[in-house]
Amino acid sequence: MSVTLADVARRAGVSPATASRALSDRPHVAVATRARVRAAAEELAFVASPDAAGLARGTTGRVGVVLPHLSRWFFGAVLEGIESVLRHERIDLLLYRVGDAADRRAFFDTLPARRKVDALVVLGLPVDARERERLELMGVTIVAAVGQVAGHPFVGVDDHVAGRQAVDHLVHLGHRRIGMIAATDPQSDGYPDARSVAYRDSLADAGIPYDEDLVAVVDWGGAGGAEGMARLLGLREPPTAVYAHSDEVALGAVRTLRRAGLRVPEDLSVIGIDDHPLADLTDLTTVRQPAREQGEVAARMVLAALADAPGADVPGARAPGGVTLPTQLVVRRSTAPPRDGVTAPPRDG
Amino acid sequence: MSVTLADVARRAGVSPATASRALSDRPHVAVATRARVRAAAEELAFVASPDAAGLARGTTGRVGVVLPHLSRWFFGAVLEGIESVLRHERIDLLLYRVGDAADRRAFFDTLPARRKVDALVVLGLPVDARERERLELMGVTIVAAVGQVAGHPFVGVDDHVAGRQAVDHLVHLGHRRIGMIAATDPQSDGYPDARSVAYRDSLADAGIPYDEDLVAVVDWGGAGGAEGMARLLGLREPPTAVYAHSDEVALGAVRTLRRAGLRVPEDLSVIGIDDHPLADLTDLTTVRQPAREQGEVAARMVLAALADAPGADVPGARAPGGVTLPTQLVVRRSTAPPRDGVTAPPRDG
Repeated sequence: MSVTLADVARRAGVSPATASRALSDRPHVAVATRARVRAAAEELAFVASPDAAGLARGTTGRVGVVLPHLSRWFFGAVLEGIESVLRHERIDLLLYRVGDAADRRAFFDTLPARRKVDALVVLGLPVDARERERLELMGVTIVAAVGQVAGHPFVGVDDHVAGRQAVDHLVHLGHRRIGMIAATDPQSDGYPDARSVAYRDSLADAGIPYDEDLVAVVDWGGAGGAEGMARLLGLREPPTAVYAHSDEVALGAVRTLRRAGLRVPEDLSVIGIDDHPLADLTDLTTVRQPAREQGEVAARMVLAALADAPGADVPGARAPGGVTLPTQLVVRRSTAPPRDGVTAPPRDG
Repeated sequence: MSVTLADVARRAGVSPATASRALSDRPHVAVATRARVRAAAEELAFVASPDAAGLARGTTGRVGVVLPHLSRWFFGAVLEGIESVLRHERIDLLLYRVGDAADRRAFFDTLPARRKVDALVVLGLPVDARERERLELMGVTIVAAVGQVAGHPFVGVDDHVAGRQAVDHLVHLGHRRIGMIAATDPQSDGYPDARSVAYRDSLADAGIPYDEDLVAVVDWGGAGGAEGMARLLGLREPPTAVYAHSDEVALGAVRTLRRAGLRVPEDLSVIGIDDHPLADLTDLTTVRQPAREQGEVAARMVLAALADAPGADVPGARAPGGVTLPTQLVVRRSTAPPRDGVTAPPRDG
């Protein structure tokens, strides 16, 4: 019997959009309307929590971070960035990990009753419309990192650009038969797969026909990468270069090549995305994305939002906006021109 | 002007040991004494926090975890184990990372006034006597993971056993000239270096003289490992095998060997400790320690302590105890007998 934003809106006699704006303290909502929506939300949901009545905006001294993984380097690094900024302000960090679908449902269902934080950072967790409604029912500041939550500030990288940087590098080296190991994460269903779109676009720009045999879709991680590479090696005409969706996936591919007695990059080039610390140790060419910095920016967005007085409706001051941090190609020793010596025509720069 | 346990003890007219027992709700303290110590502690310190007066034991619904790193796989995996158990009990997790010495001092100085949790897990952070006093002034359950806090329950592995398993493996393969890359972590000063002692002991048992030239002490991490290996390669007579304090350090060593044109394990064997997920991908022989499980056990220790009624002085029920989880050798492809074919005499099993 979960309460939805529509229930709150109906009770307050406003549209769901207005209810959403009122609950998240965004501008352009009349003071009286805001009060009516808040009252409706509290009657329907917040009353369930004994804490909630006593909590005013910005008074818990806590910020929550909800994320799908803790033992992956990338999430740890982003979290470290968030923590470093919050600690400096003596704000406590509450951690919520949501794993499988059941976890996730339980988390979002109990959100309004768990208004124990002044703000919530949604880290690497794409949310659907219903989940977003639940988040907004909390009535706290929401910031998205490594992904977006419609209508709220976000920080991330452009995955399409990152993917283009990786595949374009292989094209520039002269490769024409380029495989992709596309990694899917069951805990991040629905994430727009910009890294796959970038592969198609890069090939199209280079006049290379798309061949679905050259795409191996695997589970995220090293084991998936190893399996995907084995599949590509089993083709009648294997690729001369492989683009993996992440460094861990790429390192799995490299293991398969090593076990098959193939040399990287002499026999086959491999590129990943991330610049995981071990990419440097394994001489893996990759596209670097700033991890810790994404966390720092997310935390500063939280601080900026909390610094705004709740009643001060300065238009635009808390309007949702995004920060996109740059990615860059890092050339190491896992990529080289193909053995047949084919050289691509010169391109821009 | 920080308040120490001695101040509280003096004011209550008891010994520091008794004050400590009373504050941490351990048995064998008379009810009246316990009340007097608590009153003294509150007068001196807890009064500083507006929350503290209203908080009774086990009522915040929060458990804190204090740790030195977030972006290292091992800490993330332990944290994931803690989180999975606490989440199941609907207990919130507050995260405190302490980085450098200043961070650390600030954290411990403000502890008593920050009694926002029912229990604290001290993860991979060795504490000195003063820091332990500060922890105990909080008057909450303390559990140590990956390290110990004197007088409190702990979970970990036996680092001496792990080190022996690694070095003994190299000895059994027939190596006599075995190097060690010892990693130090400025954020974990004072941690008993059982992994180094294990190296000496293993060599001594095998009748191999200790040669300090074969020991490279470096900063923790891949860059340190790479540098340590370079130092060992610069010896007039380099080792035929290298024992690294962790997998990341070992992978740094492997990079130096690769860049020097040396093959692993044909020219030189390398072993690490941890069983990092990338050890599997890089075919690194290692000694596995259970990471997530250490977190799960720590969280279950917290739950057991919180389940005890505060007044119920059942002797031994909350007595400090430790759980040591087993480590095991995982043989992959980075270790082999030395090239000169020397074989060690058969040993036990």
